[in-house]
Amino acid sequence: MIKKVLIANRGEIAVRIIRACREMGIETVAVYSEADKEALHTQLADEAICIGPAPSSESYLNMEQIISATIVSGADAIHPGFGFLSENTKFAELCEKCNIIFIGPDSKVISRLGNKSEARNTMENAGVPIIPGSREAIYDAAKGKEVAREIGYPVIVKAALGGGGKGMRVAENEAAFDMAFRTAQKETKAAFGDDTMYIEHFVQHPKHIEFQIMADKYGNVVHLGERDCSVQRNHQKMIEESPCAVISDELRRRMGEAAVKAAKAAHYENAGTIEFLLEKSGNFYFMEMNTRIQVEHPVTEWVTGIDLIKEQIRIADGQQLSFTQEDVKLTGHAIECRINAENPEKNFRPCPGTITDMYLPGGKGVRIDSAIYSGYTVPPYYDNMLAKLIVFAKNRTEAIRKMQSALGEVIIEGIDTNVDYQYDILHDPKYQAGDFDIEFIAEREAKNRQD
Amino acid sequence: MIKKVLIANRGEIAVRIIRACREMGIETVAVYSEADKEALHTQLADEAICIGPAPSSESYLNMEQIISATIVSGADAIHPGFGFLSENTKFAELCEKCNIIFIGPDSKVISRLGNKSEARNTMENAGVPIIPGSREAIYDAAKGKEVAREIGYPVIVKAALGGGGKGMRVAENEAAFDMAFRTAQKETKAAFGDDTMYIEHFVQHPKHIEFQIMADKYGNVVHLGERDCSVQRNHQKMIEESPCAVISDELRRRMGEAAVKAAKAAHYENAGTIEFLLEKSGNFYFMEMNTRIQVEHPVTEWVTGIDLIKEQIRIADGQQLSFTQEDVKLTGHAIECRINAENPEKNFRPCPGTITDMYLPGGKGVRIDSAIYSGYTVPPYYDNMLAKLIVFAKNRTEAIRKMQSALGEVIIEGIDTNVDYQYDILHDPKYQAGDFDIEFIAEREAKNRQD
Repeated sequence: MIKKVLIANRGEIAVRIIRACREMGIETVAVYSEADKEALHTQLADEAICIGPAPSSESYLNMEQIISATIVSGADAIHPGFGFLSENTKFAELCEKCNIIFIGPDSKVISRLGNKSEARNTMENAGVPIIPGSREAIYDAAKGKEVAREIGYPVIVKAALGGGGKGMRVAENEAAFDMAFRTAQKETKAAFGDDTMYIEHFVQHPKHIEFQIMADKYGNVVHLGERDCSVQRNHQKMIEESPCAVISDELRRRMGEAAVKAAKAAHYENAGTIEFLLEKSGNFYFMEMNTRIQVEHPVTEWVTGIDLIKEQIRIADGQQLSFTQEDVKLTGHAIECRINAENPEKNFRPCPGTITDMYLPGGKGVRIDSAIYSGYTVPPYYDNMLAKLIVFAKNRTEAIRKMQSALGEVIIEGIDTNVDYQYDILHDPKYQAGDFDIEFIAEREAKNRQD
Repeated sequence: MIKKVLIANRGEIAVRIIRACREMGIETVAVYSEADKEALHTQLADEAICIGPAPSSESYLNMEQIISATIVSGADAIHPGFGFLSENTKFAELCEKCNIIFIGPDSKVISRLGNKSEARNTMENAGVPIIPGSREAIYDAAKGKEVAREIGYPVIVKAALGGGGKGMRVAENEAAFDMAFRTAQKETKAAFGDDTMYIEHFVQHPKHIEFQIMADKYGNVVHLGERDCSVQRNHQKMIEESPCAVISDELRRRMGEAAVKAAKAAHYENAGTIEFLLEKSGNFYFMEMNTRIQVEHPVTEWVTGIDLIKEQIRIADGQQLSFTQEDVKLTGHAIECRINAENPEKNFRPCPGTITDMYLPGGKGVRIDSAIYSGYTVPPYYDNMLAKLIVFAKNRTEAIRKMQSALGEVIIEGIDTNVDYQYDILHDPKYQAGDFDIEFIAEREAKNRQD
């Protein structure tokens, strides 16, 4: 039985894990960088060990230091949280070698799912829908056009190697294909010194829908419904909710089955998330699987009533899942807003600094996961998320109103935050109608620039 | 349709009501005393009107001022919260005369239930169990003994008029009766100049169990399960929970039926609470009915999922109850601890003053209803409750652990609080076993004095 857990993380997720452990009667060890001496996780844990200077590479990413702290403190398990070492194959391997329980999947599973093309193959073989794409290297437009016709327009032409948005063009139809292909190939050659191209169906205006799954060591895999995480800015999620406003029970069942199939195909264990792109048509495609707890896990906790962190620890401890698929019922509606230290009027520039005054709302259906307090200095070294404001109500309309009211109460002084920006989104008729996709924020900002 | 509500209260309940209104799209008007200019409810409401100097008699109990503020602001309804004018027949009447919706029952119902002996008669006639007692005036021990035998020992002999603990004696059995009666009568005569006695069955070591009921204007009455409020100190509740640890489904059904019967007999409307004394034997007796929302309503909200304040407003607005008895399912376990500004080491002396630093916990299953913030000065004029810490978990054991953990995180500096005292109770094996009654705190304190 796990008796003592070292939390290899900081911020609100470290606090979240400390609370779960305490409630389970498990001792906690925090690790902290020199910049985090006054951090809440450092103060709340039963023990706290300094693991190095502020830069993450020297502390929260310093595997040897973290393993040493684990051994020195006598902890029998490590919870990696999210970010940092949570999806690092080497770190999971190191834990395995040192006989430390890594609260997450096996290192081989992390490795397999971390490799995008291997993950894609695994999913395709298991019958999980993936985005249709070319199976062979493409070097010329004529061959490309043949493949594009098979895949179905619109298509996106990409560099087979490389990334970062370079060498990418969308062709809406066959007439536009040649031009798109040639431009993309030219860019690809210039950027990567290679002209191998890859063609894929272009998923237009999709929603980012992810399914939470939990799997134990005995092959039991259950999904806990979906989260709509389409409100994103530069691929950073801002608002998440469960359930999704526009998914029918029938579609949820199909997507949930695909998620369970995906987890089984990967021989998955512990908490994981299958990310899908969902088209307006109802077609959905596997994007990737995250092999860790997610920032947005509280919305799933609220609609299912299941404590995901405690369940992670129980699974790592060799216990069977405490519920079956039939036990999981989605009740009500939960929304999470990420409160970040950033200035939306200055291109979301991060704003570390000292919180001189603070008031966070409470009351029925309001949950706050944070690691800040009045007088706390937000260090400049890490992610700028300060807090997660999560609300729950019996339906989406009431949840939106509750979030509007709660955001209206937040006071964080001394640093800039995105609270007013979030408040505006919660009042946007498109958001309120559930009528948004991953382009929503970009389109909104483009429109605001025009006005 | 109610469009604007004036909240005739202060503190956390005023904040609670403002939040509910805001989420319903209803405008809010706060009233405040000169001492509450910086209070949270004053700041949060859409409008705030000063109604007089600090002493309650000149502000929060000043009916004319409150009615004026309602008319001036154009509010169409008043929510009285608890305490202050919430059970004041005259105030409810005044609202009725001025065509202001009083969010609570009819003034006649308040009056009828406020009169203890009338309430007792109403309940007895309706078949709700009441504590067996003498029906006629008793002047001598011989007659008293006859009556006591009928009622069943132990009995308590009391002054028929008067109160305050004077002229009261318990007789455990017939042998002890004469002595008890004569001493009580002598004291009664000395204290009240009258020797009329009243004899009642003495309920030994009862639990204080109360049932929440909701009733609309159309005769629909539903109970929302019980709250165990036995952890009391000098009749002040400290910890409340739902459900009660020792009530079986069968007993809950019977008590719930009695509560509904009681509300129907009183032609009750809106939110109300039927208080019972519950003996170890399972016998229960009607004590009184509170004709308002209770401090401890959040524990019921959490196990039923129903927002009681919103439901109160809907009922006052003439809407039908939004649920039936069959819809009400108690799920999980909720506990509330009242955090007071008082010093348990100095006989719980109230400790108003300025909160110099504050940290309140959050996370899954933690709700805080409060009206305090860092830098806030708790005025000396009012109730010393600062905040309610409410937790929810899937069962009582987990809820207790969550409360222990949450209490352990609370930081309130600058004034004394009962947080450590509450923390100790949550670690008391008798509390943990559910093995406590209304004498629990008194016995615990007596024992601690001996140690």
